[in-house]
Amino acid sequence: MHEEVLHHFTIDKFFLALILVFVFSKVFGELAERIKQPSVLGELIAGVILGGSVLAMIPSTQGVIGYDTFHLLAEVGVAILLFEIGLETDLKDLIKVGPTSTMVAIVGVVLPFVLGYGSIIAFQHFGLLNLESSFATLVAITAGATLTATSVGITARVLSDMNRLQTNESKIILGAAVIDDIFGLIILGVVSGLIDAFNSGSESGVSLVNVSFIILKAFGFLGISIVIGNLIGSRLFDFFSKLKVRGLLLLFSISFAFLYAYLSHIIGLAPIVGAFAAGLVLRKTNQFHIIEEGIKPVSDFFTPIFFVMIGAAVDITVFNPFVSENILVLLIALILFVVAVIGKFASGYVIFQKGIKKSVVGVGMIPRGEVGLIFAQLGLAYGIFDTKLFSAVTVMVMLTTFIAPPLLQIMFAGDDSEGITQET
Amino acid sequence: MHEEVLHHFTIDKFFLALILVFVFSKVFGELAERIKQPSVLGELIAGVILGGSVLAMIPSTQGVIGYDTFHLLAEVGVAILLFEIGLETDLKDLIKVGPTSTMVAIVGVVLPFVLGYGSIIAFQHFGLLNLESSFATLVAITAGATLTATSVGITARVLSDMNRLQTNESKIILGAAVIDDIFGLIILGVVSGLIDAFNSGSESGVSLVNVSFIILKAFGFLGISIVIGNLIGSRLFDFFSKLKVRGLLLLFSISFAFLYAYLSHIIGLAPIVGAFAAGLVLRKTNQFHIIEEGIKPVSDFFTPIFFVMIGAAVDITVFNPFVSENILVLLIALILFVVAVIGKFASGYVIFQKGIKKSVVGVGMIPRGEVGLIFAQLGLAYGIFDTKLFSAVTVMVMLTTFIAPPLLQIMFAGDDSEGITQET
Repeated sequence: MHEEVLHHFTIDKFFLALILVFVFSKVFGELAERIKQPSVLGELIAGVILGGSVLAMIPSTQGVIGYDTFHLLAEVGVAILLFEIGLETDLKDLIKVGPTSTMVAIVGVVLPFVLGYGSIIAFQHFGLLNLESSFATLVAITAGATLTATSVGITARVLSDMNRLQTNESKIILGAAVIDDIFGLIILGVVSGLIDAFNSGSESGVSLVNVSFIILKAFGFLGISIVIGNLIGSRLFDFFSKLKVRGLLLLFSISFAFLYAYLSHIIGLAPIVGAFAAGLVLRKTNQFHIIEEGIKPVSDFFTPIFFVMIGAAVDITVFNPFVSENILVLLIALILFVVAVIGKFASGYVIFQKGIKKSVVGVGMIPRGEVGLIFAQLGLAYGIFDTKLFSAVTVMVMLTTFIAPPLLQIMFAGDDSEGITQET
Repeated sequence: MHEEVLHHFTIDKFFLALILVFVFSKVFGELAERIKQPSVLGELIAGVILGGSVLAMIPSTQGVIGYDTFHLLAEVGVAILLFEIGLETDLKDLIKVGPTSTMVAIVGVVLPFVLGYGSIIAFQHFGLLNLESSFATLVAITAGATLTATSVGITARVLSDMNRLQTNESKIILGAAVIDDIFGLIILGVVSGLIDAFNSGSESGVSLVNVSFIILKAFGFLGISIVIGNLIGSRLFDFFSKLKVRGLLLLFSISFAFLYAYLSHIIGLAPIVGAFAAGLVLRKTNQFHIIEEGIKPVSDFFTPIFFVMIGAAVDITVFNPFVSENILVLLIALILFVVAVIGKFASGYVIFQKGIKKSVVGVGMIPRGEVGLIFAQLGLAYGIFDTKLFSAVTVMVMLTTFIAPPLLQIMFAGDDSEGITQET
């Protein structure tokens, strides 16, 4: 009774792919928890297995039929996850740790950038890379930029899996990750400007005015959206709660989160920053508990799609050391990975506040996740990275993403009584 | 930080379209309830307004960027709705009203078919249509087939909105709609066979063996999937409930529903038949209440997308009587609509059981919804319908869909004490 055009993603394939995502992510999530790992690690591994380089059973590669739909659902997934985490986060606590978060973010951007930049220059010097000398600086800057990203999704999920969202460490990480996204925006603007200037042979179009404008726009959006949200959010939802139709409160709160995500995207920030801000705002409404209860199953549905898609982006064939080209890629990737970890890990050690476990904050900033991949793809698309360097950067991003969950687990382990400041 | 290819449906457009679907569907749903109408009517109207012929703010037309994704989400929406309704339906009650449902389904297929067939022949006779005489029979058969469909989605939503799912009338309707889908499958097979035979000029390829095979396959699937589900479902979910990872039980029950929907689709039945059967099966598990609680918010998220997409398929420009061509289309549509309503309404009056409100069952069978549209598109695709007849059939389908919710409301109104047998 259902004719379907063959070059579309048909409903039967869609059902099958969703079943695979759900069953694999939960089975591997369960296995991960059995060996005392965060379940998100299991979901990432489920993604690797379902992805193009192993079973190829879900549309995880750009251009494959159905990829667009899964990509959109994954984005909705991480937005809903950050909305949910925003709902569980007190804005006051975030502001209290604001200065600390800012310091962590600054060091966590500057240090990895410098180390990444230096590594590329060193690779060039020692003949691992053979770049034109006029081009090498630009490659080094772009690679450095890739190392500055922080993927809050992974860390937030781990902290949530471990019931640690209410610790001061978590709040510092969340705050720093949001600020990091703003820095990422600035760096992206600067790097794009440099690339354009290089390609057109003209002077760099990057000016202090441009950079100031980006900063103003990003902080302005966050400030205004949170202030306005706090002013009208409660009254709005008091009114909504008088309406009777089923599902209204849940769908209006999700629409609120999507609106913030949309505006955030328009400004140039990641949608998840807006979704997180929406959660902070709706936490203060009188309908907070109803919204939280309703959002959980929706989050259960969508978030595994995000983490599976992240895992599915891994091309495991580059890890085969018997292919001679891979050895150079892996060597570069390994060095970048080490400096990527050191750079972010060190950012935790700028904290002077007492009772904060610095190593937890440092490790929490490590995963680059999807944000790092976006930088890498940009480098490839503009011809700054060749496929080797692109692969190396991608492997680095993946390693930081997969190492963070078990490392966080170790950092927190047996630590309930001292070091960690647990509230509520 | 997010580069996107322009010919894809970007995440910002996706967020905006979802916001529009959610806000419009709930606002119009609320308005519908205020004037004592089922909220689904409001969702359908929200769809008309957002659709291509009015605001064109969501991708509701085939070929438009993002349509594929919304179409898939709509299919997931109606599958989850029928899964939820299956969860709320007792299989024993369905079996008890089985013979009655079967009679209702048979009359509700035969009568509309005969009336639709006769109408086309009459149109031809009176010069409203100018078909080749050898072709007229085939057109009449296809149009008749379009009138046989029942869209259980609309009626089930109305009954659910009105808290009437536990009435005997609802069970007769649900049972009849499932059987109707099997008849639809048979009719589709027969009509496709006739069309192929006509196009190739050969003898009809439709044989009693083919038809028997379709019947066997459909009933076999339903019987086997429900029996096996009942045998292993409880044990399976008792085991699943021992697993700890968040969201596992919900995602496994949704996967179970999607698997049944997938198998149903493979057999040739609508996915919703399988999803409904999955609900019937999981109702008997010990985790029934947890599953039901979890599925509600997921259903709240997805089902409005289905009803909005149905509404958005309406092209309101054909209702403009100042365009001269529309008058003929509307005249044909109106006559088909009247016989479509009479044919299904009469099916309620085959019930001899006492205490059953026949008019409720009759009205419950009226909406053709998406199933009717699929038949109409098939007719157009195979060149059986010209655009005029296609438009007329589409208008007929739409009118039956929009008339059912208010009619059901009237049938049930002020009727709590007598006529309706409310259980539980």
